[in-house]
Amino acid sequence: MTGVPSFRFAITSLRTKAGSAMHHLCGTVKRGSLSNCGPPSPGVTPVGLLTKEIPMTIQDLAKKFTDLCRAGKFEEAGAKFWSDDIVSAEPMTGDMALLKGRKAVEGKGKWWAENHTVHSCKVEGPYVNGDQFILRFEMDFTPKGKQRMTMAEFGLYTVKNGKISEERFYSNGGA
Amino acid sequence: MTGVPSFRFAITSLRTKAGSAMHHLCGTVKRGSLSNCGPPSPGVTPVGLLTKEIPMTIQDLAKKFTDLCRAGKFEEAGAKFWSDDIVSAEPMTGDMALLKGRKAVEGKGKWWAENHTVHSCKVEGPYVNGDQFILRFEMDFTPKGKQRMTMAEFGLYTVKNGKISEERFYSNGGA
Repeated sequence: MTGVPSFRFAITSLRTKAGSAMHHLCGTVKRGSLSNCGPPSPGVTPVGLLTKEIPMTIQDLAKKFTDLCRAGKFEEAGAKFWSDDIVSAEPMTGDMALLKGRKAVEGKGKWWAENHTVHSCKVEGPYVNGDQFILRFEMDFTPKGKQRMTMAEFGLYTVKNGKISEERFYSNGGA
Repeated sequence: MTGVPSFRFAITSLRTKAGSAMHHLCGTVKRGSLSNCGPPSPGVTPVGLLTKEIPMTIQDLAKKFTDLCRAGKFEEAGAKFWSDDIVSAEPMTGDMALLKGRKAVEGKGKWWAENHTVHSCKVEGPYVNGDQFILRFEMDFTPKGKQRMTMAEFGLYTVKNGKISEERFYSNGGA
């Protein structure tokens, strides 16, 4: 009863993939011709503008953000899609557990980049519901002066006005 | 910079695993002897009572709930850990997209069970942050009168007063 039932809705989603695909095409049509996009598909939530004229759905934004993460372009992903008042919540207590604002969150990322060697990073997703999506990260990395390790983690992203307003990470504590 | 930085916190979590383990032991000490539990470990959030006297952390609850799901005991998992006013949100629009209350959500599960044959279900997790945890479901199933299929989905669970107050599912639309 917990999680299983909704698989039937995924089946419904399959039927609406053509509609979703149509919205992906919106990113390629010439600017200003919004009529080319047609009406939103069921379950496709417009979240903002890709440019001044081209609408972007949560699916569009999540896919573009995920593609950048998958390519290892995390800085670019944040620069393009984070809100300036982005909130970043880590699965722990302490000073860095909850950061607010682009500068603070970029600082955390900078610290990470300078103190870890990433050998590979697999990204699964995006998995969408309403104005949120989830990604699964699996990373092979070596912390400075420590042993190489592989860890998995989930990221929950909340989108408002076409930008990611919050990222919240979930860990299994290395279990 | 989006999701990657928090891997370093997962490393910290490794150091606190002994603490978490201590809290798992709390479920086995004789009732009423809370002192056996000692102080909470960093990042371990007490969320309610396992019994009248035994405290349960989010990690405890998430693990017990996940173990039942992993064993295919979804009804038992819901019966034990859902709040009576559980809210269940599916990744789609429509009448069944947002259900409130145990009866409504159990009805959805009953509908699913009666209309799908489940061949296998893998459950990954729990991945915890604060009062929430995420599970990844991968199910091999056959909808009545349709073709057998495999689909993945994420479930985000929010815990309040020792019960799951909300479950929110995220889908990739079968992509």
